[in-house]
Amino acid sequence: MARAHQGARGTQVIDTEIFLEDLLRAVGPDQVVAGAEVEARYFGDWALRDETARPVALVRPRDTAAVAATLRTCDRHRVPVVGQGGRTGLTGAAVPCSGGVILSLERMNAIGEVDPASGTIEVEAGAILEQVQRAADAADAKFALDIPGRGSCTIGGNISTNAGGNHVVRYGMMREQVLGLEAVLADGTVLSSMNRMLKNNAGYDLKQLFIGSEGTLGVVTRAVLRVFPKCPDVQTCLCAVRDVDGVLALLALARHDLGDTLSAFEVMWPSFYEYGSAALDGQAPLPAGHGAYVLIETEGVAGGAGERAMLALLEAALERAIVADAVAAQSLAQRRQIWAVRDSSGQLQNTMGPYIPFDISVPIGEMGPFVAACEADLRSSFPTARWVFFGHVADSNLHICVTRADVDPDSLDRLIYDRVATVGGSVSAEHGIGLLKRDYLDRSRSAAEIEAMRRLKRALDPNGILNPGKVFAADRSRDPT
Amino acid sequence: MARAHQGARGTQVIDTEIFLEDLLRAVGPDQVVAGAEVEARYFGDWALRDETARPVALVRPRDTAAVAATLRTCDRHRVPVVGQGGRTGLTGAAVPCSGGVILSLERMNAIGEVDPASGTIEVEAGAILEQVQRAADAADAKFALDIPGRGSCTIGGNISTNAGGNHVVRYGMMREQVLGLEAVLADGTVLSSMNRMLKNNAGYDLKQLFIGSEGTLGVVTRAVLRVFPKCPDVQTCLCAVRDVDGVLALLALARHDLGDTLSAFEVMWPSFYEYGSAALDGQAPLPAGHGAYVLIETEGVAGGAGERAMLALLEAALERAIVADAVAAQSLAQRRQIWAVRDSSGQLQNTMGPYIPFDISVPIGEMGPFVAACEADLRSSFPTARWVFFGHVADSNLHICVTRADVDPDSLDRLIYDRVATVGGSVSAEHGIGLLKRDYLDRSRSAAEIEAMRRLKRALDPNGILNPGKVFAADRSRDPT
Repeated sequence: MARAHQGARGTQVIDTEIFLEDLLRAVGPDQVVAGAEVEARYFGDWALRDETARPVALVRPRDTAAVAATLRTCDRHRVPVVGQGGRTGLTGAAVPCSGGVILSLERMNAIGEVDPASGTIEVEAGAILEQVQRAADAADAKFALDIPGRGSCTIGGNISTNAGGNHVVRYGMMREQVLGLEAVLADGTVLSSMNRMLKNNAGYDLKQLFIGSEGTLGVVTRAVLRVFPKCPDVQTCLCAVRDVDGVLALLALARHDLGDTLSAFEVMWPSFYEYGSAALDGQAPLPAGHGAYVLIETEGVAGGAGERAMLALLEAALERAIVADAVAAQSLAQRRQIWAVRDSSGQLQNTMGPYIPFDISVPIGEMGPFVAACEADLRSSFPTARWVFFGHVADSNLHICVTRADVDPDSLDRLIYDRVATVGGSVSAEHGIGLLKRDYLDRSRSAAEIEAMRRLKRALDPNGILNPGKVFAADRSRDPT
Repeated sequence: MARAHQGARGTQVIDTEIFLEDLLRAVGPDQVVAGAEVEARYFGDWALRDETARPVALVRPRDTAAVAATLRTCDRHRVPVVGQGGRTGLTGAAVPCSGGVILSLERMNAIGEVDPASGTIEVEAGAILEQVQRAADAADAKFALDIPGRGSCTIGGNISTNAGGNHVVRYGMMREQVLGLEAVLADGTVLSSMNRMLKNNAGYDLKQLFIGSEGTLGVVTRAVLRVFPKCPDVQTCLCAVRDVDGVLALLALARHDLGDTLSAFEVMWPSFYEYGSAALDGQAPLPAGHGAYVLIETEGVAGGAGERAMLALLEAALERAIVADAVAAQSLAQRRQIWAVRDSSGQLQNTMGPYIPFDISVPIGEMGPFVAACEADLRSSFPTARWVFFGHVADSNLHICVTRADVDPDSLDRLIYDRVATVGGSVSAEHGIGLLKRDYLDRSRSAAEIEAMRRLKRALDPNGILNPGKVFAADRSRDPT
């Protein structure tokens, strides 16, 4: 049965039956599921689902050759392709297209051995983050990326979104974990750059194109990732400070005194801390009522120097009245209790009710005025709303959650993102753009930058089949019809 | 006087007089020097000069607008443009084109204040590396890139070549120092992405395109660079080991015990060490005769833990017979003496005579067999030649110098680069490709990768005016004539 559908570049009539025959010939029936039989879980990510989408097929390739064959076939027929990893994204980048193919990398989940000489591990794109962490751990090494979706998110998704997390201040984003990459272009060209070397300046660093571009420039199939030496000496403390100026003073002191051992600097504004304490039944490590709370963590090599350094930092900060109160974890249980406050963000739904989350970046020096201005905006626009501010801060990242019942979502988006624009911040710190932030990309990027992105897109994916409409609206200027 | 010349895309007749008039109108006479008056220093870099080149003009812009106006004019007339920084490159990437414009960024050398909250410093492309290091130092911070050309190389050049150096194992390449970037495209479009935030996932990370692409995709005009906390506790030692297996065992131990404080791991093979000792009049810190020598350095925060950690490492390495002999610097003078052996590479010309240098990368686990095979190749092909091997090693980087008088340079290039190809190494670790390594790019990159590079080049520089013929041969398929 042939159907007309919306192709990658505007309205286009293709013969679905002929396309499916070609696809089956290209990759074999055991790797293809017909559109009508695609299970519900493939219709979106953690943030956005489209149950009304009518994909023509789901392809679950077993190897890079099958990915290449799928893309080649789709490109010839101008059929859009949406790549999927663990579908834990938060911007709708994995939402399928009607008339398109869902390309799930879930079967390509092999994890190689750690190469101790290079300090690397080779994995397929569908490998689950937590399993990669475990493989590194088993070889007495550490894979540094860690995010809440670890149990189901995939390395390919982490790469495509340039995932972040709590330890970016120490280890960098996912981009910094990738030494080598294999990706397949829209026309089926396999670009295999499985470099294991820290220094390699042999021409353009092509892998950078596919990191953080959300599957719009190519499909990531394999990667060589860095692993680091384990840092067994972990020190954790929680500090109460009077205001954001105190937070910045504490950050400067921590950077100076702790150097590169500083591995987390998580800030909680009072509203967040109160909800966090409530979620813990009042078992919070420090009393409420302070201007801000900061979780500091260090990771160092064995030998006990970490504890002395952390205590010296707290002493200096108390002496200079930067910190009003502090508690340093003396046991794993105390460490967990401190992190439980920060991780109570996972239970905000229960304590504050349904909310709209934001993931933004603000230059660190602007953080105080930004939060104050944003709160004033919120108070005047949505008088009944409640909100919390928290974030990684040392890496510029701020999260905001606002109660959903009290706001018009579009007005709220505009309020926050317009305010971000005034301080030269970013509408996306670590989640990407996808569909949900697409209309606000111009708050952080100039028209020239967005046009340069489109230029790259046209160069690498001239028929616009790869995840069309994600990051920016699909380009209709070259509509083939 | 009008002249015909070789344009960016094949032979093309332009009217030089009309072009120069347009250029003067676009940027003003005080920023333009006519071709015949261009001083000798602009005709090449440290590795390659072309005194026979006949550039039509040298432009020394004072601001980004003048860079944009220059490029716009050149693009309209299809006149090639070669960007220049401090001309300390080692691959001929800054050699001018006959009939083209030299675009020197030397006047755009402003250095902003360190922003202590973000840990960043904003600079213009022509800023001298050493002056940026000093500006950071004056603000109690550290700019982490350091290379021998520091006194004259520029940040724009460091970015365009993705410079490396001795401390990449700790701080990464130049790419990792760049948070924000401004670059001008061939058509004069200014892409200003002066980001100061560690986390920013708002669309494609465009700056990556201009880092390490040697001025072929755009001209870098400004940057936001990371600065780090100073690490006053520096520990340096020199170890003698029996062979490359010992080097790898020592590297594994150092990574494990020293963690991220490990900031240099420099390996010298015996031939290098002997020349180094000779250059120091026999004042070498350890006797000759060992299988390899390793300089280890750590950088940590104040507090004295570094010395204990370094001594514990040496004790463990001696106990396990990984290290045969070792000396740890107890004073700045001793530290300088240890580094003097490594830095004697700057005096190799005096001790071993004129030589041909190589900058390659080899996966660390392959280092031992690679050096052995390479030496066997050298012995059989060039029986009278002498050579030295040394390198940063922890970041995969190996340098080789072979006496020039005893070899056919092209045969030597092929010998080394073909051997690099067999182990999946890189023909360029930290120097780039430029002109000198262009014919060997295919030893480290597949045809598909090189074609993808060309595709990017065509997308961003459709008329091929930017540093044509560098990295890969100029694309004549779209020759306008």
